[in-house]
This record gives sequence, structure tokens and C-alpha cells, in this order.
Amino acid sequence: MTTPERTPTVGDILTKHSRGMADRVAVVCGDVRLTWRQLDERVDRLAAALAADGVGRGDQVLWLGQNCHRLLEGLLAAGRLGAVFCPANWRQSPAELAFVIDDVEPTVVIWQETEVGETVAAARGQSSSAKDAHWIQHDGPGDASEYEDYLAASDPTSFTPPVVDADDPFVMIYTAAFEGRPNGALLSHRAWLHQNMVTAYIMGTTAEDVCLCCSPMFHVGMLRHALSAFQLGGRNVIARRVEAEDLCRLIDAERCTVTFLQAPTMAQMAAGNADGRYDLSSLRSAPGTPEWNAMVTVDERPLKNGFGQTELAGIITFSSTRAPGIGAAGRPIPVAEVEVVDPDGTVLGPGEVGELVVRGPMVMNGYHRRPELNAHRRRGGWHHTNDLGRREEDGTLSFVGPVTRIVKSASENIYPSEVEACIRAHPDVREVGIIGVPDPVWTQSVLAVVVPEEGATITGDDIVEHCRLHIASYKKPRHVEFLDALPRTPDGAVNYDALDEKFGGGGYPAK
Amino acid sequence: MTTPERTPTVGDILTKHSRGMADRVAVVCGDVRLTWRQLDERVDRLAAALAADGVGRGDQVLWLGQNCHRLLEGLLAAGRLGAVFCPANWRQSPAELAFVIDDVEPTVVIWQETEVGETVAAARGQSSSAKDAHWIQHDGPGDASEYEDYLAASDPTSFTPPVVDADDPFVMIYTAAFEGRPNGALLSHRAWLHQNMVTAYIMGTTAEDVCLCCSPMFHVGMLRHALSAFQLGGRNVIARRVEAEDLCRLIDAERCTVTFLQAPTMAQMAAGNADGRYDLSSLRSAPGTPEWNAMVTVDERPLKNGFGQTELAGIITFSSTRAPGIGAAGRPIPVAEVEVVDPDGTVLGPGEVGELVVRGPMVMNGYHRRPELNAHRRRGGWHHTNDLGRREEDGTLSFVGPVTRIVKSASENIYPSEVEACIRAHPDVREVGIIGVPDPVWTQSVLAVVVPEEGATITGDDIVEHCRLHIASYKKPRHVEFLDALPRTPDGAVNYDALDEKFGGGGYPAK
Repeated sequence: MTTPERTPTVGDILTKHSRGMADRVAVVCGDVRLTWRQLDERVDRLAAALAADGVGRGDQVLWLGQNCHRLLEGLLAAGRLGAVFCPANWRQSPAELAFVIDDVEPTVVIWQETEVGETVAAARGQSSSAKDAHWIQHDGPGDASEYEDYLAASDPTSFTPPVVDADDPFVMIYTAAFEGRPNGALLSHRAWLHQNMVTAYIMGTTAEDVCLCCSPMFHVGMLRHALSAFQLGGRNVIARRVEAEDLCRLIDAERCTVTFLQAPTMAQMAAGNADGRYDLSSLRSAPGTPEWNAMVTVDERPLKNGFGQTELAGIITFSSTRAPGIGAAGRPIPVAEVEVVDPDGTVLGPGEVGELVVRGPMVMNGYHRRPELNAHRRRGGWHHTNDLGRREEDGTLSFVGPVTRIVKSASENIYPSEVEACIRAHPDVREVGIIGVPDPVWTQSVLAVVVPEEGATITGDDIVEHCRLHIASYKKPRHVEFLDALPRTPDGAVNYDALDEKFGGGGYPAK
Repeated sequence: MTTPERTPTVGDILTKHSRGMADRVAVVCGDVRLTWRQLDERVDRLAAALAADGVGRGDQVLWLGQNCHRLLEGLLAAGRLGAVFCPANWRQSPAELAFVIDDVEPTVVIWQETEVGETVAAARGQSSSAKDAHWIQHDGPGDASEYEDYLAASDPTSFTPPVVDADDPFVMIYTAAFEGRPNGALLSHRAWLHQNMVTAYIMGTTAEDVCLCCSPMFHVGMLRHALSAFQLGGRNVIARRVEAEDLCRLIDAERCTVTFLQAPTMAQMAAGNADGRYDLSSLRSAPGTPEWNAMVTVDERPLKNGFGQTELAGIITFSSTRAPGIGAAGRPIPVAEVEVVDPDGTVLGPGEVGELVVRGPMVMNGYHRRPELNAHRRRGGWHHTNDLGRREEDGTLSFVGPVTRIVKSASENIYPSEVEACIRAHPDVREVGIIGVPDPVWTQSVLAVVVPEEGATITGDDIVEHCRLHIASYKKPRHVEFLDALPRTPDGAVNYDALDEKFGGGGYPAK
């Protein structure tokens, strides 16, 4: 039994659109065009089939494939069942994917042969829990589709969907492996409902919009636009992956109005379409290069996205004015509270760097199977972002960098990323890594490892003096070392363990 | 203890703005200009004083006055306490206000002498529960202010506000006396949070906006703009009541950008400002008369408000395109589900008239002290609006009129307002009232009482034929009577009881 104050789930929204805009096209993917009524019927079939396969409330469905209308169907069917849908990052190695399979423990896996089949097969072989799941190929074998057969064999009439609570999670997205392994953030119907409205507010999304889903839908950056369009009754046009010319063709053919692109892709598209072969004028876009701006409709609205993260199902700060504010991240979105705190949870004043913490209905339910980490990240009733920020004098917020490690000098907490941002701003510095070295008096002291620009003659004293001018004195390096290049981990991040080893780093406080 | 997924209350939003935009002006009222920090401090003082007066969770504070920054303070202080703030309609008679006082059973009454003092005194004398409340005059006596003394004597440091749940109501607004007496709709923090985002989305509200609160703040039409501006961190400029020249002066002086006005006021303002004495160009407004459009900035955004009601804390449908749709009310707002149902709750198909029912987080908690009516209005897990609507072929919705009475012809339900709307569209008809008369075969039959236009020669057969062309045949009148004018109740509504008596109406089904 539900009450009139019920917060709608994605299943409710789909039902609503299937009644209110039944014959409008909801999703386009290759040759497939589904109206809201057809999408609703297919999702019902899939939900009934998954339920018959044992997928119930709180169970997991894993997607090992690229963007596809079936990804959206899986997500909505899981939402109808109170289950959780996890679109995994298909760019990962077999070992990384095997970790995800074992961590998710899916009841059903929907997988893809095209482009990723080999990796999926290898991951399946390495995973210990793969054998417990029902594996369904969506793009084959051959010209057939196991997935379509699965839907065709389903009997939705014999199935009554359960009452799903808006607080139930229905999407799980793995975040970067900051803590040594990736963690699956569980995001609820409630979280997305709020974020979809925030996205619609900021982007001006309406039922007339056509969202091009070309960046990976396993990433919150793309998914937030897709789900916002979904909630507003707009259309999602799905591209399997980013291919510059294909995107130009789709925007032209489908009159796409919103999307989520990285700058290199925009440059490729502008170059490839220099002859104006494709009409991209339907696309509303933030200003880019002159070539890009000439092809699209530049969005002159003053609203601008700020700081966000997967665990918050989107952005948590935004700007509502084109006037350059002090705090580049802007202000909290209307439904969120954001503070900057020290490691004890004390709220910091303007100018002080601390961890950004968040409260609001868009905060994740927690990470899948990480009870201790969850307790840690939500201590004191606030979600700890693991990112550093600063409140400026005018109350706006700045994003500083990830927390990573803290250096402790006497009673002061020093965040390496803050000092690095300061030193990196020096014109003679190409890259920099900050570590802490044990200090008999001050617990630790700051050591900067600097890579100068080609031909620059900067000294350690120059670096220290530069810091003294721009950040609190206790944060300036006590030691400066120079290298030709910083050691890097295989995924391209600065290898701080290697720096510690080389320069005697250590004595870090427990996080 | 709170969790990071906490939905913010108005108290949380006020705290947030008092930290994030401390020195920006939050509210302007006459000579009073309060920054967010000052507003926060005053609300804390008021909350502490009210708590000391015995106002706790679920208790009521009644406002008997016109628009004022203190109305906003009272509303926010009640929100901080988990209490309910009721701004009463000051235009009511002493007897009507006395009914409200006795229905609310307030712990504290904040009242006003200016313009309404006599009515308030009379109502206080007629009310039986007035003596149980602490009465505080906000605008006197004389040059003093009992309210300001109350705040000054308060000690907020000795007071810890309770943890308020977003599902708690904090505003109560009385609706029209459709059911014979007015009912106080209890609206929660959660309901307003969602509606504030919807308003911001539709109106494009940001922290840069300045909302002119001139229409009565006891009405949801004005309050939704005030609270949306509040939530977005915008500024509220408060006018005690509507005075056309005063509004022009305020818009000019405070650069107001949004407001809520009735057409006659807009006409007065345009006429009074014909010489362009006041600069109204800051105001974004939907298109009006050419004179009006020349003074303001006409809002060209395609988003348009649709159907709404007090019980839903604002609008529940909207249009997202300027293209003329079939259903003038548009489509449900993104966070609501809306259906059209028959009296049994069966969802009706396109073209059929039934009651509009709503589900979503903006639905009221219920009416204050009306358990039976509440159970009736939320039967089947949907809020029954008591308003008629129709889903059109394209899925959009039309608003038809209030339910009022149902005429039963055999098994068919006939809504008088639908038949009236049809007959009223005839060019020869000035007004019309539909009643049901007992019928030995059909339970009831439809009788139309028609007032023709001056000089028109329309016949009963013309009326019946007109209906046959435009609505289902079973809804057409079986009898047509003519009058020079319809009988009216003291508040101007058609007096159906008098029509029943005159023309033998009766046999209505129980509602």
C-alpha cells in the first residue's frame, strides 16, 4: 500500500510516461526506436524474466557491455524490482573486471561480445562467483540475441512487481580505486530524483530535449544527463561509444540538444566537421573553441555545474551567475548542505582548507559491502567526500583536490594537494609531488619534489618563498628536491610510495 | 542524530545561507533590511522564545496580520521547532477568523493592529480558544513592538533546537470552504523542498533573484515564489499588501525580478506608470497587455505553470513548450504522478472526464484535525484533488472544473461543471447552472438552467443539440429552463441549493 506522499521511483516515472506520452519516442539506439509504451512493455518483460531468475529486492544485475538501450532497460527493470543494476567500466582489464564480478556477486550478468567479448570471457574465467550467475549475451550469438529471446520468453502478466521504496538503491557505480580497490556506490531512486531535477534546473532540460548518450553510461557524468532526460520525458539517443564522426551524424540525424563530451572529442568533432557536412546547431553547449561555437548553439544561461562525485549522483555545487566568483565551485545546490571541516569534524572558517562534507537526499546509501568504510565516510551524520575544499570570504566554495594523504606538522594538518596546487602555479614548475618526512620536533615536515620547466633555473628557496606568499607559512616545504620527472603508477598517478622511499617520507598520521 | 541522506528542512536551509551568504540581504520590509546572518539570528531568538512559551513539535503558531518580514520569521521559527505556522486570511470576517482560531487551537498568536486590528479583536472576542493562547502584537502598541520586545527578551543560547524531520508539516494554509467550512492543509518541509525546486526550474529562479511578495502570503500562489527564492538564496522584498503605485516604487527601488500578480493589479500598475516614472524593467513577467510588456522584461522561456492547489503546495502540471497543446494544463511536474479517475478509482482513458488524483512528495500531510476527510481524500494511495480533469489523446491534461456535485444517470456519472463548460461555450449563453432532478427510470436526469445573452433567442432544443455535438450524449440536459440571472450565494458562487428548490432538483448520489 502506498501513500499519496510517495516519492516516485524510476518505475513510477516510466509508468507515468508510458501513459502520458505513450507514442513519443523515448529511446533511440542504432536501428531501434522505442516509444515510451514500448520501452515500458520491454522493461516489464525484463523485470518479469529477472524475477523468475531469482532477482529480488537488493539483488544485483551486472552489465558488462558498452552503451545500449538494453543498458537503460536493465537499469529500469532493476528499479522495478527493488534490485540494483551495476553498469561496469568496460575499459578495465580482465583482472579488474573479475574483481568487480566477485564484489558485486550478481544474480544475472548481461554481457556483450562486440569489442569487449574477449575481456569479459577472461574476467569470467578469473572470477570465483561468475558460475553462480545466469549469463545472458545481449548482442548475439551471431545474428540472434540471447537477451531478446529472454524477453520473448518472459510472461509479464504472471508477475506482480513489488512495491519499491524510493530509498532503495537501484544503481551501483564503481568509483576510482583511491582506497586501493574500487568501491560500488549504491544510489537510490530518491537520490536520482533530486539530482535529475537539479540537472534539469541547471541545463534547462524539458520533454522537448534529446540527450545524446555517447560518453560511458557507467559514469555519473553521462548517466545524470540520461536520467534527467528520462525523468523529464525527453528522448535518449544512445551511441555505443565515442566515435567523433558517428556523434556528428547522430546529432544531425536526431537533432540532439544535450550531451556530455570531453574536450578532445569536441576538438575531433570540430575538425572532422570543418566542412559543415553535419548540422550540429541543435546542440546546446557551453562555450568552447571558436570552431566549436560556430557549429553548435552556445548556451548563454548563467548556470554552471560545479563540484560533484559519483557518491552524490552528480554535482553538489553550482554557479548561478556569470560573474567570476572567488570560489570557482560556486555554492551548494538547493537541496544540499556542504561544509568544510577539519579531521575532527569541526567546521572551518573562510580561507581554511579542509574536507568537503555533504548532507542531502542525493547522498549515496553507502558502498556495496563496505560497512566499515561506510561508517567512516558518514561519521557525524555527514558524507565525507575525501575531497578538499575551501570556503571563501564571500561564502562560495573552492575545490582544492583529493585528500589522499595528510602531512602532520605539530598540530596542523597539511594537505599535499593544496601545497602542490600552489607550487604548480609557479611558471617555472612543470610538476610537483609533496610528501611528509618524519621530524623529531614537528612530527613531520613537508618535502616538495619539483620537476622544473625545460630550461628554468628555479631554486628551492624560490619555491619556499613562492609558498610563503600564497599559503599559510606552516604549509610551506621545509625541504625541496628536484627530479627530471615524477615516478608514476601504471594508471598515471604520481607514485607517492616511490617518492617516500626515495626521499625518506613517512610518519603519516592514521587517516 | 541525522544521516547524510537527510532531506533539508527550512531550518537547515536558513543555517546554510547564513553561513554561505551571511552578508547578503535576505529580506527587505519597509525600512528593515536583514542579511541572512541577521535573519538567522532573529529566527533563532523567536524559536527560543516560542519554545519557552510552550510551542513544541506539532504545536501551532497563528499569524493574524498582513505580509511582513515577521511572517517569514514566524514560519521559519516554527520550522526550526517542528511546529506549524498558519498565516490566516486577514480578509475574512470576524466570525470566519474566530472559526480559524478555534480550529487551529494556537499556542501563540502573532497579530497586527494596522488595518486588521478591529477584525482581529472581534474574532478574538468570539473565539472560545483564544484565551488559551499567548497573543503578541507585532506592530505596536504605539511606536513600540511587543514582538520586538519578545525577541529581545529571548535567550537563544539556552535553547537547543530539536531535530526536525523533513516529513513534519511546518505551514498550514486554509483552503476555500468547498465542503462547507475551510480546512487547514498541512504542508511539510519535504513538500516545499520539492515544490521550491519545481518553481525554480519553471521560473529560472537563482540566488540573483529578488522576489516581490505583494500578493497575500497566506496564499500558496505567493508563498511558493517566496519560499523558492528563499531556498535558492534569493532576496524577498515584502509589501504589506497590494497597492499599485507602492509596488511600482518597490520594483524600481529594489530591482525586483519575480512576483505574483493578478491581472487587475497589472492593469493598475501599467496605467499608473504610463509616464514611465518607475523603471520596472528588472521584472521578468509572462506576456500581458502591450502597455505592460513595454515596461517589464517579457519572459520568453517556454515553461508555463499549469494546474495547482494549496493541498499540493503549488502547481502539479506545467507546459514545456510554447506550442499550443490540446491539454491546456500540460503534463505532470517531474516529481508527480497525475491520473484521471472515476468515482471508483478506475483510471480513465483519453477524452473521459474524471477527478484528478495525484501522488508525489509534494502532497500535503492532510488537513489539520480532519481524520475522516483525510482518509476520504487519500483513498487508494492517491490524493483526490476534488477537481475534474481530462487526459487528451496526446496524453496531456486539461483542467475542467471543481467536482462539486455529481449527477447520476443510470450507471453514468455526470459532472455538472463539465456540462456547464460545454453550454457556457455557446455564444448565446451568458451563464448556466446544471442540477440533477430525480428520474424514476434513470435515477436522475440533467436539468440546465440557462441565462441567455441580452437579446439572444436561443431555445432549449438549441442547447440540447449543442451538447450533443460536443459531449457524450448521456450528459446532455433532458430539461432546459431559462432565467434572467442565476441565484448566487453571498460569496458569489452559483446557489445550487436554490436551483434545486426552484426546479425540483434532488436524488444526488452520496459523495
